[in-house]
Amino acid sequence: MENKKIKIGLIGLGTVGSGVFKTLSDFENVEVVKIAVKNKNKQRNIPNLDESIVTDNAYEVVNNPEIDIVVELIGGTNPAFDLIKTAIENGKHIVTANKELLAKHGEELFNFAEQHNKVVLYEAAIAGGIPIIMPIKTILAGNKINKIEAILNGTTNYILTKMDVQHSSYSDVLKEAQELGYAETDPTGDVEGFDAAYKITTLATLAFKKRVKIENVYKEGITKVRAEDMKAANDLGYKIKLIASAKLDEQGRADVRVHPMLISKKSTLAHIDYVTNAVSLTGHPLGSITLSGPGAGEFPTASSVVGDILAIVKELGTTDYLLPMMRCDHHETAEFIPVSETENKYYLSLDAKNNKGVIGNIGNICAEYNISLESIVQKNVSENNTADITVITEICKEKDMQGAVKAFETSEFINKVNSLIRVQG
Amino acid sequence: MENKKIKIGLIGLGTVGSGVFKTLSDFENVEVVKIAVKNKNKQRNIPNLDESIVTDNAYEVVNNPEIDIVVELIGGTNPAFDLIKTAIENGKHIVTANKELLAKHGEELFNFAEQHNKVVLYEAAIAGGIPIIMPIKTILAGNKINKIEAILNGTTNYILTKMDVQHSSYSDVLKEAQELGYAETDPTGDVEGFDAAYKITTLATLAFKKRVKIENVYKEGITKVRAEDMKAANDLGYKIKLIASAKLDEQGRADVRVHPMLISKKSTLAHIDYVTNAVSLTGHPLGSITLSGPGAGEFPTASSVVGDILAIVKELGTTDYLLPMMRCDHHETAEFIPVSETENKYYLSLDAKNNKGVIGNIGNICAEYNISLESIVQKNVSENNTADITVITEICKEKDMQGAVKAFETSEFINKVNSLIRVQG
Repeated sequence: MENKKIKIGLIGLGTVGSGVFKTLSDFENVEVVKIAVKNKNKQRNIPNLDESIVTDNAYEVVNNPEIDIVVELIGGTNPAFDLIKTAIENGKHIVTANKELLAKHGEELFNFAEQHNKVVLYEAAIAGGIPIIMPIKTILAGNKINKIEAILNGTTNYILTKMDVQHSSYSDVLKEAQELGYAETDPTGDVEGFDAAYKITTLATLAFKKRVKIENVYKEGITKVRAEDMKAANDLGYKIKLIASAKLDEQGRADVRVHPMLISKKSTLAHIDYVTNAVSLTGHPLGSITLSGPGAGEFPTASSVVGDILAIVKELGTTDYLLPMMRCDHHETAEFIPVSETENKYYLSLDAKNNKGVIGNIGNICAEYNISLESIVQKNVSENNTADITVITEICKEKDMQGAVKAFETSEFINKVNSLIRVQG
Repeated sequence: MENKKIKIGLIGLGTVGSGVFKTLSDFENVEVVKIAVKNKNKQRNIPNLDESIVTDNAYEVVNNPEIDIVVELIGGTNPAFDLIKTAIENGKHIVTANKELLAKHGEELFNFAEQHNKVVLYEAAIAGGIPIIMPIKTILAGNKINKIEAILNGTTNYILTKMDVQHSSYSDVLKEAQELGYAETDPTGDVEGFDAAYKITTLATLAFKKRVKIENVYKEGITKVRAEDMKAANDLGYKIKLIASAKLDEQGRADVRVHPMLISKKSTLAHIDYVTNAVSLTGHPLGSITLSGPGAGEFPTASSVVGDILAIVKELGTTDYLLPMMRCDHHETAEFIPVSETENKYYLSLDAKNNKGVIGNIGNICAEYNISLESIVQKNVSENNTADITVITEICKEKDMQGAVKAFETSEFINKVNSLIRVQG
């Protein structure tokens, strides 16, 4: 006699979908019964794929009465959101890797699922194969998490690592990454920080048990990071990484952002290179942990999708209220600290006149804006009598630093403000 | 009207027990109703501790009909095992941090619990606050894990880190660690690798879904690692760490060990310093991930204990078959590769005569035992005409290396074999 197999419907059979299909074929208690694709005629190299279960109408998946779990892997909000809602209405549990949908419509999605007593799991949406969502919900549930610093986008981490090791410019490395398939033809979603912002929005919501609104997340990409900044950072004991961070202050106000950051070489994140992702989180009673691994890719992402599927499968039939720890049970919205009020350390690169008053002038401007300095280094006095000056500040207010930058831009001693990058503080 | 509180009994109120008690006081759905201690009269600095619930008879905890979950934090096999079995017979779920009990009697313990439909959770037993047990059981369940490399003992990692940064001897650093409370008066359990061996036994059993017998785990401590080895390793691009490793070969045979190892500075584990622990695991479809964080301590360990407690609390009353993914459902015993048949790279430090034939002699002996060499470096020719020679081999068989070591010991060119340490390969 055959055991009852749990029936799975897949929406999307791209890189991750193929990995999920192949991985599930090793499990005897599940069966993929329907797969929706964009183009049925596309040549696919997937062994044991029964073409008769492939459809180009995703509603054939979500409306299929046989299916227990719908796995959504197409991304974007439309039609993904409507497909998922329809599936939930039809009594299906959901596994998704859709970071954009979660960041933009998470609250509505989880409320809808809860009304229908269905679970929505999304381990694969954040940091690919790294186990982070389920651990926060389960084994770390005793903690008050108040800080996350993470590398959540493999493309930008690859580009920054290459810029560092090759001493190359952003545009040269981007071109190379595009040729190798590590960056898309239109790289905006990655290099401008959208992808990382979606992920940190959901991660912070979960970790802080308060809803973080994507429109409150400060975002700055890597396109302005220069090879010279990489070198200067290295000389000062830092690496430059695109860091997605989330902090709760003592009043419970959130500060969630994505931007390049100088990270001490002594920090674990400084050693996370190429397409690897990592999440460091701090809380009480835990202290700090760092989880690192592959942030994308066919098989690593499939590990997370299949883990979510198996968690549902294991509880189906044992209880009417599946996976109570995996439910979303926070409805408070996080209050935000305005970016101008946030406090940071800064790295500042100035193109200055090689004039004996220049250091004093920089010091005076900083003092005027309540900015204390950790170091000023002057280098490369060039033929046209200009000097590269690198400043590292102590912790100061963003609005003061923005004021100082304006003052530098009008100072007669400064030709140009090359870069302003925050420093891990 | 008050919600029903889940009743907790604690056995042990030392460092971890105190942390658990303090952490649980923030949760309104649980209540510690009985605590067993060794010495009732000991002065404890625990706010809000009601002395009337403290007993020096642990059977008052396990026999208390009110209690839902018993938390065992005394360690060792006796009386812990009997206490836990009695608690299970009395209908209680178990949370334990007892790595020795799990390593020596895990199979019996889990079978006993399963017969009584009770769960035994043990996140805190391995790697303190790092989430590793629950992730392997849940979100990583779709993987075939075939390799673990881990730093599981904080005391030895502290000693090795200090030896490295201070260029000090093992005995000097041990003394300092004992004075600071990082090492015990009798440090045997840590420095001889017992603690790490208990942990890797349970971790490998779980990851491989096959029972690993502690008597098959090869174990070597750090007492013979010399400051000179640290320096030589550094010069060659390595750090020396006490690594607990577990591998499955293609025939499914296990190779589980604890010993010092030269780890490439490019590896994540090389940057895990002082009392921090880390676990790297590799499997399919995941690839490799590394989880790092505090491996011990009052609060980090409490994070894991409380996480386990809350997982049980969340499901109590919703189903008669709690936490199906957290059950132990593997009963096969792992076949082992004999240590002499294992293959490794080696670091070898030789005290040799400064004789022009010496390098040739070393090369000949290695060739005789089928050992290829990656490098030979000769240094520090001293006044009495001896030379320090450092050899790094290619991957070769343990039994061949042991043969070569015997041959070096009788060679007229070699005064002494200083060290033989395996190298990450």
